[in-house]
Amino acid sequence: MDLNADLAEGFGRWALTDDDALLETVTSANVACGFHAGDPLTLQRVCRSAAERGVAVGAQVSYRDLAGFGRYEMDIPAEPLRADLVYQIGALQAFARMAGEPVRYLKPHGALYHRAARDEVQAEAVVAACRDTGIETLVCAPGSVLAQAASEYLRVVPEVFADRAYQSDGRLVPRTRPGAVLGPDEAVAQALSLARGEVRTVDGETLAVAGETLCVHGDTPGAAATARRIRTELEQHDIAVEPFS
Amino acid sequence: MDLNADLAEGFGRWALTDDDALLETVTSANVACGFHAGDPLTLQRVCRSAAERGVAVGAQVSYRDLAGFGRYEMDIPAEPLRADLVYQIGALQAFARMAGEPVRYLKPHGALYHRAARDEVQAEAVVAACRDTGIETLVCAPGSVLAQAASEYLRVVPEVFADRAYQSDGRLVPRTRPGAVLGPDEAVAQALSLARGEVRTVDGETLAVAGETLCVHGDTPGAAATARRIRTELEQHDIAVEPFS
Amino acid sequence: MDLNADLAEGFGRWALTDDDALLETVTSANVACGFHAGDPLTLQRVCRSAAERGVAVGAQVSYRDLAGFGRYEMDIPAEPLRADLVYQIGALQAFARMAGEPVRYLKPHGALYHRAARDEVQAEAVVAACRDTGIETLVCAPGSVLAQAASEYLRVVPEVFADRAYQSDGRLVPRTRPGAVLGPDEAVAQALSLARGEVRTVDGETLAVAGETLCVHGDTPGAAATARRIRTELEQHDIAVEPFS
Amino acid sequence: MDLNADLAEGFGRWALTDDDALLETVTSANVACGFHAGDPLTLQRVCRSAAERGVAVGAQVSYRDLAGFGRYEMDIPAEPLRADLVYQIGALQAFARMAGEPVRYLKPHGALYHRAARDEVQAEAVVAACRDTGIETLVCAPGSVLAQAASEYLRVVPEVFADRAYQSDGRLVPRTRPGAVLGPDEAVAQALSLARGEVRTVDGETLAVAGETLCVHGDTPGAAATARRIRTELEQHDIAVEPFS
Repeated sequence: MDLNADLAEGFGRWALTDDDALLETVTSANVACGFHAGDPLTLQRVCRSAAERGVAVGAQVSYRDLAGFGRYEMDIPAEPLRADLVYQIGALQAFARMAGEPVRYLKPHGALYHRAARDEVQAEAVVAACRDTGIETLVCAPGSVLAQAASEYLRVVPEVFADRAYQSDGRLVPRTRPGAVLGPDEAVAQALSLARGEVRTVDGETLAVAGETLCVHGDTPGAAATARRIRTELEQHDIAVEPFS
Repeated sequence: MDLNADLAEGFGRWALTDDDALLETVTSANVACGFHAGDPLTLQRVCRSAAERGVAVGAQVSYRDLAGFGRYEMDIPAEPLRADLVYQIGALQAFARMAGEPVRYLKPHGALYHRAARDEVQAEAVVAACRDTGIETLVCAPGSVLAQAASEYLRVVPEVFADRAYQSDGRLVPRTRPGAVLGPDEAVAQALSLARGEVRTVDGETLAVAGETLCVHGDTPGAAATARRIRTELEQHDIAVEPFS
Repeated sequence: MDLNADLAEGFGRWALTDDDALLETVTSANVACGFHAGDPLTLQRVCRSAAERGVAVGAQVSYRDLAGFGRYEMDIPAEPLRADLVYQIGALQAFARMAGEPVRYLKPHGALYHRAARDEVQAEAVVAACRDTGIETLVCAPGSVLAQAASEYLRVVPEVFADRAYQSDGRLVPRTRPGAVLGPDEAVAQALSLARGEVRTVDGETLAVAGETLCVHGDTPGAAATARRIRTELEQHDIAVEPFS
Repeated sequence: MDLNADLAEGFGRWALTDDDALLETVTSANVACGFHAGDPLTLQRVCRSAAERGVAVGAQVSYRDLAGFGRYEMDIPAEPLRADLVYQIGALQAFARMAGEPVRYLKPHGALYHRAARDEVQAEAVVAACRDTGIETLVCAPGSVLAQAASEYLRVVPEVFADRAYQSDGRLVPRTRPGAVLGPDEAVAQALSLARGEVRTVDGETLAVAGETLCVHGDTPGAAATARRIRTELEQHDIAVEPFS
């Protein structure tokens, strides 16, 4: 199982994620690319730190929306969206090259993640931007429109979430509903279950889920500690924590 | 003699430079990289058009300042400046690669051009950003602090200006002074003179100037027509108009 | 009949609307407030010019989206949207006060105009922002969700469009469809028809429309000339062109 | 003695200052206005909280520079700078009016504070923006060019700093030098000394300083606690902590 986290999500004077602590734990770093977060100097530092630790660097691209942190869906057409994504990927590739590493994958951020999971136009823009920039791997929700649009052209890595409750249809319980976000203990337990290929839904059912990467969130207090606990839990149960191929 | 012009200087809904017309005339395109102008879709289009016409693509990097069009000097320290430049170059490189071309050179825009011409800290940040991103050629003012800082590491291409009056010390007459900007007829005449290695200063002296690239401005009405006249004038006097090596 | 136009839609180095020419023709100026266009210095100038000519100043508020010119709908929740609008209105009010005039009305720009016309949450945010800032008049599409949400609290001024084709349901033909935007001659003819209370739809029907303000667009070449022709046409047919009360 | 702190210095997803805790302690709130920090929703909340607690609201205006947090000096000319400041003040005034309070004063932020303290052009732009918007009081460094430029038109409130070391010429030791920023214990001691009209300089001299407002910084961990200790220290020594008139 791969462990991924969103990193470099500060901007200038503002910090958010404890990048160094998370890089000690995860195997894949979703590096913000400047449109929802991530100033250039932070990108440079995180790429270098990731490279030093053998953590894979991925492009966590977003709508252009610093004020909203990329959390609001936007009806941007395919062509400008695709170009916005190429711009972000290219910028990150420069810092990754400085660190001696390629950008190994792309994972859309926030509202783009959710929109592209059900909107063909935006999904195809995401896939096209990967192809434009030589990115061959995409992390996204299994069974999504994006996963389908990408399947012909890219290696698709299905993602599961340690700290988010699942519905019986395999989707996440929306953040606006109570119980959507799990506490640390539950997240550790769910991580182990997911690594074994199943998850207990909010309705009490057991659902088979074939995740290849497990997302641990990094933007809350204690996030790095929970991530560390998850890694330890997996390793103690003989589940190898390593980057997806 | 190479002819360069600033291109892609619109942003979203706003256009500024007549990119297609200028690409018919110049041999080097200084492509804005999004910090003072240049939205991603425009970068994509201009890179493709330049590649189709055999025009060299350069990165016209700037301070982060859309509102001021990169025209105000900023006291930004070396480290964040360098990262800002790498970010812009990387973004442009992605679009250039899509068009099948490399980014062949860097030329700082506006206030950064002038600041780095006399400020060692910022000059070194510019040089470092080139080295970080594999850019091997720099267009800048001959005799400047930037030219000096770059000389050890980069191919320096000295730039001269068709439509700007020169002082006897070899510098441009500041824009705030009367007579700083030449009209079309004067610009055409000065272009020919510069291509022959000299320029008549505002004080009436004749100054030797060894420019390898001639800047024609593209952000005023009639700019593309003047650029075309300059190219014709040079060619009629048997001066080859071709990219610098 | 009132004539309104979108003004101040440049940003820094970029111009778009011929503000001075349009201010000679219209009776209401929808002044951009900086989020989709409109740098502060332009706001200052347009407010002063409007005040000198007796043209009413309105706040043309938008999503925060310079790159997209406010043309993409955003799923921003009510609270941050309301605050974004208050921010823009307050900024414009400062320039209007400098010019000795109040901000007399609000008109949403672009995607916000269309979204709030059918989305209750965003419509209520628009109405709330008016009430927060002492704005008592709202220009919007007649019969829209926004018009309804505003009716209890604000004077609603129904708006009609000279240069946009109408459907039989009273809505505009979407810009993406052929024939959506009328040429100058058609726009002049439609303006007169609208001022008389009716419009011929794309299906050839005649529809009654009770507009109190007529929008003339200002962001295309020749826009100011067409606006002038419309005003002349109305006046020659004894229709008073004057601000709504 | 008045106690002031910089507040509302988050932006969207990013928090910086513990606004509620500081509002329990200070008597004047320098509210960020969106150009270096301060999203609209935060402005709204801080204005309301300040009003509820009887804390005076001031406009903490800045260069337009989110990425640099307003910390880099910019060579922006007087006219656009003045308009940028009017824009920010107007936006804040809207939120202050919503909270039933006026904006009582202006204090420039960061690099603008320091630049306007010695640059006549920018100082005059600051003063002009206050007059444009009905702001009658200015907080700035005593003896500065800005204080002088303002003296004819505005009530000038000289500011002193609890946690910054002073030079013998009355200026602050630059942040780049060791010992420039004092620890909590020193800051509490210096606050009391400053309230009594003197300060011990880095050279060991005792300097008379006539401050009317004391700045406590809010953007470091423990800042709110230190501010509280300063207030308690002053009150225990019978120094009234109250807004400047």
